[in-house]
Amino acid sequence: MITTTTLSSHKKEVTIGFGHPFVMIGERINPTGRKILAEEMKAGDYSRVEAEALAQVEAGAQMLDINAGIPLADEPAILAESIRRVQAVVDVPLCIDSSIIEALEAGLAVYQGRPLVNSTTGEVEVLERVLPLVKKYGAAVVAISNDETGISQDPEERFKVAKKIVEHAADYGIKAQDVVVDPLVMPIGAISQAGNQVFELVRRLRTELKVNTTCGASNVSFGLPQRNGINNAFLPMAIAAGMTSAIVNPLHPELVQAIRAADVLTGVDDGCGRWISNYKDKSKEGNDAREGRRRRRRA
Amino acid sequence: MITTTTLSSHKKEVTIGFGHPFVMIGERINPTGRKILAEEMKAGDYSRVEAEALAQVEAGAQMLDINAGIPLADEPAILAESIRRVQAVVDVPLCIDSSIIEALEAGLAVYQGRPLVNSTTGEVEVLERVLPLVKKYGAAVVAISNDETGISQDPEERFKVAKKIVEHAADYGIKAQDVVVDPLVMPIGAISQAGNQVFELVRRLRTELKVNTTCGASNVSFGLPQRNGINNAFLPMAIAAGMTSAIVNPLHPELVQAIRAADVLTGVDDGCGRWISNYKDKSKEGNDAREGRRRRRRA
Repeated sequence: MITTTTLSSHKKEVTIGFGHPFVMIGERINPTGRKILAEEMKAGDYSRVEAEALAQVEAGAQMLDINAGIPLADEPAILAESIRRVQAVVDVPLCIDSSIIEALEAGLAVYQGRPLVNSTTGEVEVLERVLPLVKKYGAAVVAISNDETGISQDPEERFKVAKKIVEHAADYGIKAQDVVVDPLVMPIGAISQAGNQVFELVRRLRTELKVNTTCGASNVSFGLPQRNGINNAFLPMAIAAGMTSAIVNPLHPELVQAIRAADVLTGVDDGCGRWISNYKDKSKEGNDAREGRRRRRRA
Repeated sequence: MITTTTLSSHKKEVTIGFGHPFVMIGERINPTGRKILAEEMKAGDYSRVEAEALAQVEAGAQMLDINAGIPLADEPAILAESIRRVQAVVDVPLCIDSSIIEALEAGLAVYQGRPLVNSTTGEVEVLERVLPLVKKYGAAVVAISNDETGISQDPEERFKVAKKIVEHAADYGIKAQDVVVDPLVMPIGAISQAGNQVFELVRRLRTELKVNTTCGASNVSFGLPQRNGINNAFLPMAIAAGMTSAIVNPLHPELVQAIRAADVLTGVDDGCGRWISNYKDKSKEGNDAREGRRRRRRA
């Protein structure tokens, strides 16, 4: 059986799945660490939220993550309004992102289509609040592979947590194919085996648990210089291991290109059609211009 | 047992191996398709050969491939002289690259250290000429996984050819760890499963046959636009599958960075030391400058 998680907006369907192109979920509508965006959202100004939605879809994001986690603000209301605004300007499915159950519910109530709920962990208390909501709205859910004991450095433990979440979801009538597991990407600068842990976990999640996977990819390079260089290599490696989606910044063209190249190389870009249509006319201004600059620097 | 292939020059040792940093073998000293270089080498002018050697080592190549395949030229003499000249200016071990047995022998005769011989195929006639030479000079050898029947599209067949070469090498007293298998990288534009074939083969060559691997990486993008984008993703994916060396163009900084990032992500760059020393001071002029240009273009 081929695992597929189908999400939709009011206008469009997107499938995360084995044999499908990798799904980039744009991360930029998130006020965490972005003071101006946070203040604007709190004050009811969604112009930047809308602009970020348009720019990310233009850059190639097939879905967008919407987070409204602002301290001392009415997160349920702001998340719901952000979703309404974003659905008015773009047609990609959304990922409703909050750690507050009331915010998830408010977002689900206004969402048009079938969203991805981000997220539940393996903590029983969280599972028992999030899963009924996911079931009620017929959504799919991101499952983060940590539980009450924290984040294990042992991939076997993280696999067990993922398995537990999938089993709990089944108890609530949610299919395994609607659970998208986040194996948890740790900073490689602190944990030298962080990459190998993820690659092994993704492979097992795909072959044994037969679930789709996602991650917050940029965490892997935390604390290192030239983080983009690490991120641009990490995703093709994770895709080679079987990862099927990730929450990324699509405004980095090299990252988007690396992901599209990985799609070509895993054989899911039929006839290289997407690659060719995205890059055939850009060869001159892209690679060649960079080559020129490099040659001049060397000379 | 950890597989290691140790090569040396008169001054320096390099190890290709599981748990070691990936070895980039510089490809640029090769007159194929380079008319001026071919004419110079034929006329006894090795200034460009020397310059290419220096530039590639400066750019990060840990080994260099030396090829002197020029039609109607004295390839054995030119290959030997190229090796002498290159060994006079750089201290990295070399890969002696020819399909002509007399050229390989001439190169081996002048080489100082322990080189990698590039290459034998699984064709019995080739094996029986190349392997005695490899044994005589105590070298290591690249084994290309095709035979009299051509290049199979079935990874199982290519695995069998590699196994046959390793067994033949053993008959000549050459250890499996001194056979570096090239799984053969086909153009993804023509064969959509070319990437998956290589990744599967590399995994099996590493886990079952326990040999090191190499490849001519750039072939994968043949015929596609923005080839560098494909190449830059291919190598991290191959490294994730277990590939331990490749013949590459180290004058592409994004490719070198992708390989170094893959080393970080597979945990073989101890404490991220190589990454940090290579990129910590370049953050400002590298990523940030590019970011700036991108922002200006968007504005």
